[in-house]
Amino acid sequence: MSARLTLSLDAMGGDRAPEMVLKGIQIARKRHPQAHFLLFGDEAALGPSLKRERDLAAVCEVRHTDGVVGNDEKPSQALRRGRDSSLWQAIQAVKSGEAAGVVSAGNTGAFMAMAKLALRTLPGIDRPAIAALMPTLRGDCVMLDLGANAECDADNLVQFAIMGEVFGRTVLGLSNPTIGLLNIGTEDQKGTDTLRQASALLRDSTLPIRFQGFVEGDDIGKGTVDIVVTDGFTGNVALKAIEGTSKLYTSFIRGAFESSILSRIGYFLARPSLNKVRVRTDPRRYNGAMFLGLNGIAVKSHGGTDALGFANAVGVAVDLVTHGFNDTIKGEFMKVQRASGLDLKGLERAANG
Amino acid sequence: MSARLTLSLDAMGGDRAPEMVLKGIQIARKRHPQAHFLLFGDEAALGPSLKRERDLAAVCEVRHTDGVVGNDEKPSQALRRGRDSSLWQAIQAVKSGEAAGVVSAGNTGAFMAMAKLALRTLPGIDRPAIAALMPTLRGDCVMLDLGANAECDADNLVQFAIMGEVFGRTVLGLSNPTIGLLNIGTEDQKGTDTLRQASALLRDSTLPIRFQGFVEGDDIGKGTVDIVVTDGFTGNVALKAIEGTSKLYTSFIRGAFESSILSRIGYFLARPSLNKVRVRTDPRRYNGAMFLGLNGIAVKSHGGTDALGFANAVGVAVDLVTHGFNDTIKGEFMKVQRASGLDLKGLERAANG
Repeated sequence: MSARLTLSLDAMGGDRAPEMVLKGIQIARKRHPQAHFLLFGDEAALGPSLKRERDLAAVCEVRHTDGVVGNDEKPSQALRRGRDSSLWQAIQAVKSGEAAGVVSAGNTGAFMAMAKLALRTLPGIDRPAIAALMPTLRGDCVMLDLGANAECDADNLVQFAIMGEVFGRTVLGLSNPTIGLLNIGTEDQKGTDTLRQASALLRDSTLPIRFQGFVEGDDIGKGTVDIVVTDGFTGNVALKAIEGTSKLYTSFIRGAFESSILSRIGYFLARPSLNKVRVRTDPRRYNGAMFLGLNGIAVKSHGGTDALGFANAVGVAVDLVTHGFNDTIKGEFMKVQRASGLDLKGLERAANG
Repeated sequence: MSARLTLSLDAMGGDRAPEMVLKGIQIARKRHPQAHFLLFGDEAALGPSLKRERDLAAVCEVRHTDGVVGNDEKPSQALRRGRDSSLWQAIQAVKSGEAAGVVSAGNTGAFMAMAKLALRTLPGIDRPAIAALMPTLRGDCVMLDLGANAECDADNLVQFAIMGEVFGRTVLGLSNPTIGLLNIGTEDQKGTDTLRQASALLRDSTLPIRFQGFVEGDDIGKGTVDIVVTDGFTGNVALKAIEGTSKLYTSFIRGAFESSILSRIGYFLARPSLNKVRVRTDPRRYNGAMFLGLNGIAVKSHGGTDALGFANAVGVAVDLVTHGFNDTIKGEFMKVQRASGLDLKGLERAANG
């Protein structure tokens, strides 16, 4: 049996918390028997369930907190007033070393702001990025940043590429993951100055990555590269455009099957195969956005998810911890700096001059 | 019978030109009996077909051109060397007034650069935008810009909003189209300075539009607003991410139906209903991206489309001409300037100060 792994959970974050969180742990504890959970939240709300369900209680420890960060609270508000919140306290458990990672389905902006303040970024990384897996024609790909940084410079994009590469190698187990920079064309002259500059930096042979150049929006679904790197504005719009299109197709196809008796029979016959598609593209399967680049593992679950989705987000945190993602990142950035004899800002100046 | 309407066509643009163009005209001439076509291209390639098909010859006039703009040519190259090309000559026919609009399935960048140079922008508009219809849960929406301008300022976005509104009103026949500005959240403080500035300008009551505020990527598929306004970088990535997702779903579902005998029977029974989805989301149905804001109608067909897709792009040009899109735009911008007593640059200063 592997060594015990402790995660701290924000039990009060998410539309259906804390019930959804508790049910999520019931699923997660079977998948990850080595996991133990520090549950931050209202003891009065959590206690009765834990008394009833002894299997659950055996892997959980409740830490009472009074406050909850609201979904509409601005990050700055949450930082000022949220020190007694379940979210802040759950993050503190990672900072203190009690927990190896934190999972919350609460307010994304507040979670990122608090995690940045408490955990700080890893050496060599200026800004953390949000990353997630996406379905493609060739397995899954990873896209980052999905919204932590609305505006990014070339250095940020290079750092995201290195983090994405390490993720592909350590967590996904790819031996040589390919990286693409999201743009509006694949030719060298396409896009913004920042993208052209980042592309020049990524082509630098001292970086230990396999950069394929620019990719376009449809390359995400095609699975052209393993890691899609972009700024947080573009990544967030692309992610949500993809989610919207998935819902559109699901709705059109459901409508088609319900539109006649023959179609209903057809659906009944094809159901086992169609269920595989449903499972393959289930948003819960892809739940668990990673805050990469922090001194500690932090995973954001979708606020509207259910127990299964939350359990998947817990699984993402377990994966990041188990595969030593952060230690590898630190090593990679030291290698980059040794190989180039420069820090990344220096690399940029070298590329420009 | 309505008055004759002449369009100029770049007969040499597109992967399967000129055959695809000629077959597209065969479809388009039945849908639009008032249309007449000036065909710019190689007479030797076009002549035999027209001699064989007299119905086609009756609505076409061939104008021989020697040159063709290649798909890989940079816009600047095409502008320098492409004056004898079918694309440039087809655009000139709009400039001279011989044709009311031009359609090409050729090189997008070259088409836009040539159209801008030859036709110039309409009064009040600094930059043209590329717009297209997209499927949503509530009918179609229009999104612009889809790639003409990788970087936009707040004025550009306001101008796109007004053009989108006029398109919704005149061509789509909506009495009061709603406008949304694509962002990574709906709260006022979200996104970039440019977006916040554009939002402030669009809320200005002197603008004759119904601005709904910020929308997110998934609002495109939901059909939250009739007109989605964005810069060309974000719009292009979103458009292609949506296309990629459509292909992913189509492929997954086709795979499901082919995966067992029962699924194949299921598909057979549900086929009439599923075909409606296929028709509803057929990329050819949405073929025909409009260059809005120029002194003349210009429509870009997808390069890889077939005759049906090209006929749809011709239909888009016919619609823009028939509904007097450009005259309405001119009137709208004069109204805006009269109402505000300012030009848009002035409006921006007023909003900031």
